[in-house]
This record gives sequence, structure tokens and C-alpha cells, in this order.
Amino acid sequence: MLATPCKFTLVAGRGEGGTPLNALDAALIEAGIGNLNLLRVSSILPPSAKFGKSLEIPPGSLTPTAYGILTSSQPGQVIAAAIGVGIGNPDSYGVIMEFEGCCTKEEAEANVRKMVEEGFEKRGLVLREVHVLGVDHRVNVFGSVIAAAVLWYRSG
Amino acid sequence: MLATPCKFTLVAGRGEGGTPLNALDAALIEAGIGNLNLLRVSSILPPSAKFGKSLEIPPGSLTPTAYGILTSSQPGQVIAAAIGVGIGNPDSYGVIMEFEGCCTKEEAEANVRKMVEEGFEKRGLVLREVHVLGVDHRVNVFGSVIAAAVLWYRSG
Amino acid sequence: MLATPCKFTLVAGRGEGGTPLNALDAALIEAGIGNLNLLRVSSILPPSAKFGKSLEIPPGSLTPTAYGILTSSQPGQVIAAAIGVGIGNPDSYGVIMEFEGCCTKEEAEANVRKMVEEGFEKRGLVLREVHVLGVDHRVNVFGSVIAAAVLWYRSG
Repeated sequence: MLATPCKFTLVAGRGEGGTPLNALDAALIEAGIGNLNLLRVSSILPPSAKFGKSLEIPPGSLTPTAYGILTSSQPGQVIAAAIGVGIGNPDSYGVIMEFEGCCTKEEAEANVRKMVEEGFEKRGLVLREVHVLGVDHRVNVFGSVIAAAVLWYRSG
Repeated sequence: MLATPCKFTLVAGRGEGGTPLNALDAALIEAGIGNLNLLRVSSILPPSAKFGKSLEIPPGSLTPTAYGILTSSQPGQVIAAAIGVGIGNPDSYGVIMEFEGCCTKEEAEANVRKMVEEGFEKRGLVLREVHVLGVDHRVNVFGSVIAAAVLWYRSG
Repeated sequence: MLATPCKFTLVAGRGEGGTPLNALDAALIEAGIGNLNLLRVSSILPPSAKFGKSLEIPPGSLTPTAYGILTSSQPGQVIAAAIGVGIGNPDSYGVIMEFEGCCTKEEAEANVRKMVEEGFEKRGLVLREVHVLGVDHRVNVFGSVIAAAVLWYRSG
């Protein structure tokens, strides 16, 4: 089987670029994950995974990541993304939720928090702690936002 | 390299939620894969992979999965997903196909079966066996369906 | 952690099918990656990864791949995809960009080349070499194009 991650951190970034993908690339760079190979996962915090303020991940690493992302080509539009991680009882898994929409960072964070709460309710789990991180951006030409929960390993 | 899966199962689920992502989350829970980190793959059954009626996969595991998925916010709409796995000669690989659309479960299953047949035809392979699993759902507020082929390992 | 790839190649293909997914499947087959489990990555060439003209990858392998992809059901439409890999100083990582659009192969390749250049500029890295591969296709019924950077391992 593939090794289960045991560490996580939250990051967010915004960016502009000459194309939609370059805008996303700029947002990834601002978030500090622009030199990684993100593997998108849906989206569970493994049991006992520990939060780290920052993770040292070698460039090019295959990095399991849950993320909300939005790219827009409408100048003046405000776009936002947020990531939320809910943590319950020790040794239980947590639930990660992603949000993206045309709103402020605060609205995105409030939305993703509610989504985490609903995720715990649906599972009948007690929610003890929620980590939330959002970002917003007013689009200039091509703009992008990303908010991500990066999962990683002890050696990282 | 990354370990190649050697077991598989088929699952399906439907769900409602307060947001589209919570609806999807509910569908994943009903399908029995709501506590996993799904890694979406395109979509080959590894040679010699064995079918299991159910797989025991630890929560938070990175789980290679092929799936069809549909989420809708149109009350009353009927949505469906289906997964199909075609198996040929022993020791050859199989072909997985995913379907999602606004139709019944039966139509989704018929569609995905034809897709598997075409996948074998295009490869000049003999199709000996097809496993198909579908699901449908009439949307209430936010509704979601998922049908998945979950790939896993001997130890799981 | 998951093993970091150390080899790469570029492939492209086009295809027609009885459904959009079968068209994509046909494009994957033409590209020579139709019997793999592609894991989509965003999209960095690991440091010291070596180019191979072709890679021998066992069927069903979990294969980290960056790709541009487009499927259309509009008969007569010309669709294109291109992949670009920029390489800088030895031992530094590279940047992979993907493009898809309704244009010719030549336009797709020119676009993706500019995207790679912007990716290096944004990182303040010197770009020494660019590999680009594109494909286009005039749609008949359901048509699909894919251009991919396949990442793999020494043993492969």
C-alpha cells in the first residue's frame, strides 16, 4: 500500500499570470507549494497526523494534498478559497473540507467551517478543534486562489 | 515506483447535504469510502487483481480509485452514476469505465457496460466478464451520487 | 513518503469513440498510456529526472502524469493539447505546463512554450531547455486529444 501521511499543514496563496494556468502557478508559489507535485486527495486527515507550522518537502515530491482552488479571467472579480480541517477524538481520523467561490476570505472561511461541522455531524463524531485558512483576491487579468491542506511524512 | 494494487471492489452511494461538497461527502459515506483519501486514477484494473466483496482499508489511507460522480442542486432531478470493470484473459489487465448522467441506475449501468465493451474492442482484447454497479438519486436540495472501483493491496 | 520519479517522457495522442470517455480512452491508447493508471500531478519535473524516449511501464501501474486533455462532441471542431517541460540548471527542478484549446497543434505548442517561460520567470530560474509536444484533431463524433509528461522510475 501507499504510505499514509502523518503530518499536515495549511497554506494559502493568490496570484496573477498571463494565462489561467500561470495564475494558478503563481498562487501555488505564493502558498509555498509551487515546486511540488500535488496529488489531489479527497480528503481525510489520517489518525494521529500532527500539525506542523511548515513542512520541509523536497522539490518534485508527490505530495498528497486537499485543496480548494478558483481561477478567473473577469477583471475586478473577487475570488476566494478556504480549507478547513476538523479534528475529533485522539486516534480518530479528521475531516478536511475545501471551499471556493466569489466572496471574501472571511465568507469563505465561515463556509468551510460549517462544512467541516456538517462532515462531523454526518459521521456522528465529536468535533474538538477546527483549523481554517482562507484567501481572497481581486482579479486583474487572470487571477487564481488556492487554499490547501498538505499531507506529509515524518521524514519531511 | 508506487505499489500496484492487487485487489478491487465496487461500491456506490448517494447522499444529500447542506452544500454540494457535503452531499458528495454523504454519498462517499454511504458507499463506505467516506473515511479514505481517494486518489483518482484513470482507470485500468492491474493484471491478476482479485475481486473482494469488501475491503478493510484503514481510515486516511491513500486509496487508488476510479469513479463516476455527479452532484446536482436541482431539486427533483434524477442523477445516476455507474462503474464497470471488464476482465479478459487471466494475467491480462482489465479496463474500468465510469459513467455519470441524468438518468436511472439501469440506464447508467447499461451505458457503462457498453463503454467497457468498446474499451476491450479498441484494444483487441477478449472480454470474459463484466462487473457493473450503479446508483441513482432524486435530488432534494443538494444531491450527489458516486460509483467507484476501489483498488487496494493484499495486506488491506 | 511516496517515491519521487526520476525519469520522464512526453507522449501525445488523439482518438474517436462512441462516448466522450471512450474517445479519451482511444487517445490514451494512441499515446501509448492506455493501459496505465494515471495519477494526475501538478506539475513539477523532479530534480535530476532524465528524459527517456520511451518508458517501459507495466500495465496497471500507478503512474504520476501531468497532462493537458480536451474532449469534444462538436463534429468538425479542431481541438488541440500540448505539454511543455522546462529544464533549468542541473540539480534544480523543472516546470511542466499543460495546454488544451480549440486551435492547431502548432498554436498549442507555442502557447505551452510561453507558459513554461513564464513559469521560470516567476520563479527567478534560468531556463536552459524546453521540450514541447502537441497534438490536434478534427472531431468526427466524439473526439479527444491528450498530451502528457509521464513521470517514472529507474526500474521502469
